[in-house]
Order: sequence, then C-alpha cells, then structure tokens
Amino acid sequence: MKRRTLLGAAAATLGAGALPGCTSLPPANGTGDLGLVIERASGTLAVVNTTARSVLGEIPGLGDLSHASVVYGRDGAHAYVFGRDGALTQVNLPQRRVLARIQQAGNSIGGAISQDGALVAAQNYTPGGVRVFDARTLAPLADIPATYQAADGSTRRSRVVGLADLPGRRFIFSLFDADEIWIADVSDPARPRITRFGNVGRQPYDALVTPDGRHYLAGLFGEDGLALIDLWDPAPRVRRILDGYGRGSQPLPVYKMPHLRGWAVAGREAWLPAVGRHELLVVDTARWEEVARVPVAGQPVFAMARPDGRQVWVNFALPDYHLVQVIDTVTRKVVRTLEPGKAVLHMEFTPRGEAVWISSRDANHVSVIDTASFETLARLPLAAPSGIFFTARAGRIGL
Amino acid sequence: MKRRTLLGAAAATLGAGALPGCTSLPPANGTGDLGLVIERASGTLAVVNTTARSVLGEIPGLGDLSHASVVYGRDGAHAYVFGRDGALTQVNLPQRRVLARIQQAGNSIGGAISQDGALVAAQNYTPGGVRVFDARTLAPLADIPATYQAADGSTRRSRVVGLADLPGRRFIFSLFDADEIWIADVSDPARPRITRFGNVGRQPYDALVTPDGRHYLAGLFGEDGLALIDLWDPAPRVRRILDGYGRGSQPLPVYKMPHLRGWAVAGREAWLPAVGRHELLVVDTARWEEVARVPVAGQPVFAMARPDGRQVWVNFALPDYHLVQVIDTVTRKVVRTLEPGKAVLHMEFTPRGEAVWISSRDANHVSVIDTASFETLARLPLAAPSGIFFTARAGRIGL
Repeated sequence: MKRRTLLGAAAATLGAGALPGCTSLPPANGTGDLGLVIERASGTLAVVNTTARSVLGEIPGLGDLSHASVVYGRDGAHAYVFGRDGALTQVNLPQRRVLARIQQAGNSIGGAISQDGALVAAQNYTPGGVRVFDARTLAPLADIPATYQAADGSTRRSRVVGLADLPGRRFIFSLFDADEIWIADVSDPARPRITRFGNVGRQPYDALVTPDGRHYLAGLFGEDGLALIDLWDPAPRVRRILDGYGRGSQPLPVYKMPHLRGWAVAGREAWLPAVGRHELLVVDTARWEEVARVPVAGQPVFAMARPDGRQVWVNFALPDYHLVQVIDTVTRKVVRTLEPGKAVLHMEFTPRGEAVWISSRDANHVSVIDTASFETLARLPLAAPSGIFFTARAGRIGL
Repeated sequence: MKRRTLLGAAAATLGAGALPGCTSLPPANGTGDLGLVIERASGTLAVVNTTARSVLGEIPGLGDLSHASVVYGRDGAHAYVFGRDGALTQVNLPQRRVLARIQQAGNSIGGAISQDGALVAAQNYTPGGVRVFDARTLAPLADIPATYQAADGSTRRSRVVGLADLPGRRFIFSLFDADEIWIADVSDPARPRITRFGNVGRQPYDALVTPDGRHYLAGLFGEDGLALIDLWDPAPRVRRILDGYGRGSQPLPVYKMPHLRGWAVAGREAWLPAVGRHELLVVDTARWEEVARVPVAGQPVFAMARPDGRQVWVNFALPDYHLVQVIDTVTRKVVRTLEPGKAVLHMEFTPRGEAVWISSRDANHVSVIDTASFETLARLPLAAPSGIFFTARAGRIGL
C-alpha cells in the first residue's frame, strides 16, 4: 500500500504507457529530499519527503531506538542507524527496508561515517571503544578498545562519546572515564593508528566537530569549561576554554545535559546551550571566548543554527519541553516562541533552511514550520517521534 | 546499454530473485552522489557517479552548451540546464533523459532555483531581463524586463548577469547596461515586487551570494572595485569595496574575466581572483578589506574553496590554462601545482571535499583528484568537458 504510493507517483511521471512496478526506467524521484524520523516507542523509522511534507512509509524492526541516531551513505539512499542497544542497522530509504543488521555492542551511543563514505564507526559504552565496519556490507573491519590505566593501576575500558568524522578515514572521539580524546586513523583498518590527548578535563560527555572540520569541542561533565582542539594546528593540542561555562559552579539542578552535536555555528559565532542555566552562550570562534549571553525560556537542550546562520532555534529540558524559541543572531534577541506540541525532542532544518521539522514526542506528531513566517506548513502524525535526520547530512562534515 | 548498467547494478543489490528492469522494489541507489558534466561540443550531458567515479550514461540533445550551467531540484534527480542559446532544459538524472525543453530567450547566461525549489529563473541578455518558470512543468510564471532609462532618455532593456537565489522566493541580479542591482520577490509570480539599487558602479558583469546568503558581491567591468550589499541589513544599501581591485587600473591584458560564481569563501576570508594580475586577493569578510595577496601561476579564472575551507584551488586563463594550483588557506602558500590536462575549464568538489573533479577540455577528459594526497584517482574520457555540477548543490544557498 505504501509502496504502491511511491511507485504510482513514479509511474504517473513516466506517462500512461508505463506499468506501475514494472518499467524500463528508474523512478523519476531522487533521494535529496528524503529523511528519516525515529519513532522510538515502536522501533520504527518513518521515511519522509521534505518537498511533499509527507510520510512515504515506514521501516519496522529496528529494536530499541531510544537515543538512536542516523548517518547517511554518499548516495543518500542508504542510512546507518545506531541503536542504544548496540545494534547497527543499514536501511534503504527508497526501498523502505532493512538491508543488514548486526548486534555490534551491548550498549552504544551513536556513530559516524568516514568522509569517503566507505567506513561506518560506532561508539560504544559496553564494551567501551569504537568499532569500524564496511559501509557496504557491515563486515567488521576494526575494533578499537578504549583502554586506559585506572588510578589503581589496572587496565580498564572507557565509555566512548562525541565520535565524529575527520578528513581522510579518521575519526575523533572522547573517553568519558579516561579524560582523554583520541584520533583514530583507519586508512588501513587492520592497523588503526591512534593519537591520544590526555588530561583533557574531567569526564568529556559529548562533543562536536565544527562544520568546517577544524575544531573539536568536548563538553566536560566533571567540571566547568570545554576542551578544544584546533585540528588544523601543525601540532594539535588540547586547550581549555570557557571556564565557568556551567556545570561545575552552577546551583541549578540539570534536568537534561545539552546535546553538543546540536551546537550551532552561525557565521563567526558558536551558540552554546548553557548547562543548567536559562541561557545561550555566544562564543567568538576565533578567540573562543564568550561575547554574550542570551536569556531563553528554560534549560536549553539543542541550539541549532538555520543553515544560513541568521537564526538559532532552541528547545528545552523539563518542565519547558513544550516550547521552542527562535533567536535572531544579528540582534541576539528571541524573535518568536512556539509551542509545537509537548516533549519537543529534536529539530532538523531542510537543506537550504526554508523550513524546520520539529518532533513532539508526547503529542505524537512532527511539525513542519516555515522559518520566515513561523507558519505551520504541515503536521505529520507519527508515534512518539524523536530524532529527525535528512539525507543532506550525507554531504556535510561532522554530521 | 548504458541504462542496463544502472539497472543491472540495482538488480544485483536486490538479490538473485529480481529481474533486471522489472522489479517490485525501486532501485537501491540514491541520487546524492550523482552529477552532470557538460560536453559542450556535442550538446550532451554526461551523468556521473562520484562514488564509483564513473560515467553512468549520457543525455544528448541539449543544443548549444557553451557557457552552460546547471541547478538542481530539491530531490537531486531533476536538473535545469541553462544554455547560452536561451534554451532551458529540464532533465532527469536517474532516467537519463530530457523531460522538458523550452526556448525561453535568444541569448541567456545562466539561472537559479528558488530556496523552496518551486521556481526556476533564467537571466537573459536578449531580451534583457529575468524570466521565472514553474520548476515542475517549465510553465512561464513571470517575466521581468530589465528596463532602464538610458542617457538619451529612451527606455531600454539591460543585459542581466549575476543572478542568485535569496531566501523566500526571491532572486537578486545585476543589470550590466544600467549599473543597477535588483531584488525580485516572486512570492506572487503574477506580481513580482522589485527593489532597485541604482548607481552600483559601472557595468556589473558577474556576481555571487556568499554561502550564508548574507552578502551579494558584484564585480565591475567598467571600473575598479566591487559592489557589495549586506542583505541582512534592515535597510540594505550598496557599498563600494576593494577600490583598485584590478580591472580599471591594471595594465595587463585580461585574457578571461574571472568567474565570480567561483569565488571562494573559506572561514572568515574570501579568496578572489584578481582581474588580469597573477594573484589571488584575500579579503576579510567582516570589514571587506584586502588582508593579503597570494601570487599564483597565471591569470586566475576560478578560485574555489574545498568545502572545509582549508584549501583553495585555482585555474587560469590562457596561456596557463593547463595548470591548477592548490593554496593552503592557513599558510597562504601554493602547496601544489598540477597539470591535469590542457584547457582546464571547471572544478567541482565532492560534497565533503575528499576529491575534486577537474575538466580538461582539450585533453577530452575529467580528472578525479584526491585533495589530500593529490593523487589522480580516476580519469574519465569525455568529449570537450566544461562545467561540472554535482547534485549536492541542491542543498546549498546561492548555487
């Protein structure tokens, strides 16, 4: 039924002579305007189209999708879904089916795909480390245990967080329990070469690579401040920035740690969710110093820049998780407060930013909102939607 | 034969039970890694795949493709080809065929697609103006004659150049003969609303919108310097920058005017081909002042940033058009000089920048070069190749 819809549309484009489902021409539609929405309660992915603003169909059987994330192969048809339960699933969007699925760890927290699209890497809590797979077949290629020397002298494995792709079949990630950041060069998967940065600060808990691939920023759970590496430096080293950024000194309870993958780089500034405080921090990305704070309605979770950087959209932890605020990055003021439905978990901009898709888990819908007029263009009923991932991520660094 | 190759590949992925060319599943491949190469001597487009580094097939019958350019619909399957002869052709990449073709003007110089993908605009020399079409059907929706009052009091039509998309169904363009820049808001195609900027400088000949959509920069043929508009300003106005930039004062003959669409914005700096001089200009994009000049091997034509901004690649006018140079944007030094084949006309980076495709017209091939090792990964025989356009442009502002 769902499949027929897509093929019917393709056939209509092909003209009256073509039979649905059996034609000598490939379908007329591309994958550039497709995406996946995680329906986490049912272990299902919804395949969506951002031009028609519609749900094309579903892919069931994905298991535990809490905190699941998605990366895309170069063609935009193939996606890799990292489940919290340690499963790695390769799906095909146009065909709306699972192509391959492996249980690669006991407890996992996301992944990345190499710049050339050949390697998929998963970051794992149990057993702590990174595993690398052939993007085509999911065959295991490399296992990188995140071993470190504990205070008692024993060798342990750290939980791994903040994994991102770097140019040239390299991945960067943080060791939460070891206070380290590693770069793994997997050009030869049989012999990964590791560069270690030690004493980066206590408990790096999440991280990102800036859109230009130049800077790696890791948030610290165990103390104030962030760890920064300028990857373009001939001899990269860890620098501590934004002491007093939040976590350590602030007296507010933290209902949800901000997601750093969602940090927004808009022009020359990064917009960071303050930890615990009802504020966004504006940071100059040349000096990496705070230049302003902007008050917002609650504890920010994601702060995401519209692709042109003119707006930053922010959602919040409990009890303000029914709200979304929009900030104009030039005036640094909140220009709109929206209530798209209870439990806003994620936001994803269309590639050129004319619209944003927002998931409201407890309202069981995804809203499509015009970023200029703030009008709701569509509301798609979906069961407990969380993460939203569009295929344009395939062409972006660090996503 | 060529079609069979694609379907065969799809069938192989589907498994042994599926018949080539007749299957209940859509093909496994997406359009995110596809592109078009202009074969201008034969009026043909080559459909290429950047993962396989191969030519999938050809689309003939495009007419005069000298100086042709391409924009993409949101899905990445549909492309719009603007021919110098005034033809506008809609093609489908997976199907490798022409879907629609109209003769929309007598002499045309490229086009753009609106942010939402709904409108395609062509900029014309004859008759001077912009015409807007339904991206789905190519039905004409708006005709915007570029009329102006000439010195003798008569009303004339100017040639139009430097067309680019702005957010919200708007287009910006320059009037070469009128020394004006216009913004057309085509939200209601029946009643385009025009904002005019006059006296922008003599003979704007090409222009670009920066990747964030904020700044419009027009090169001036009739005098030194560039015209700049900050489109985020509440009351945008034209500002003159980089007086002494090249054209007017320089004594060298200019073999080919630089293509401004190829100007490179890398981090906080724009890298501009100097007019006539063997130099690139490095310009700070906050102050819009020159901060450095980098000597290169010839008169630069395209200066293009790798997507991460770490490198700028440049090609040259006669007699140095067999060369390509690579500049490290941190050290501002030429790090490599390549000779990929005679008459280098265009360069296109893969979306995440691990490779660049370079067309060598007189060598009749396109080279695929690793941007880290500078190794030639593939060399594709193509007849007199010129422009190269990958589908990832669909998700970019101003391309």
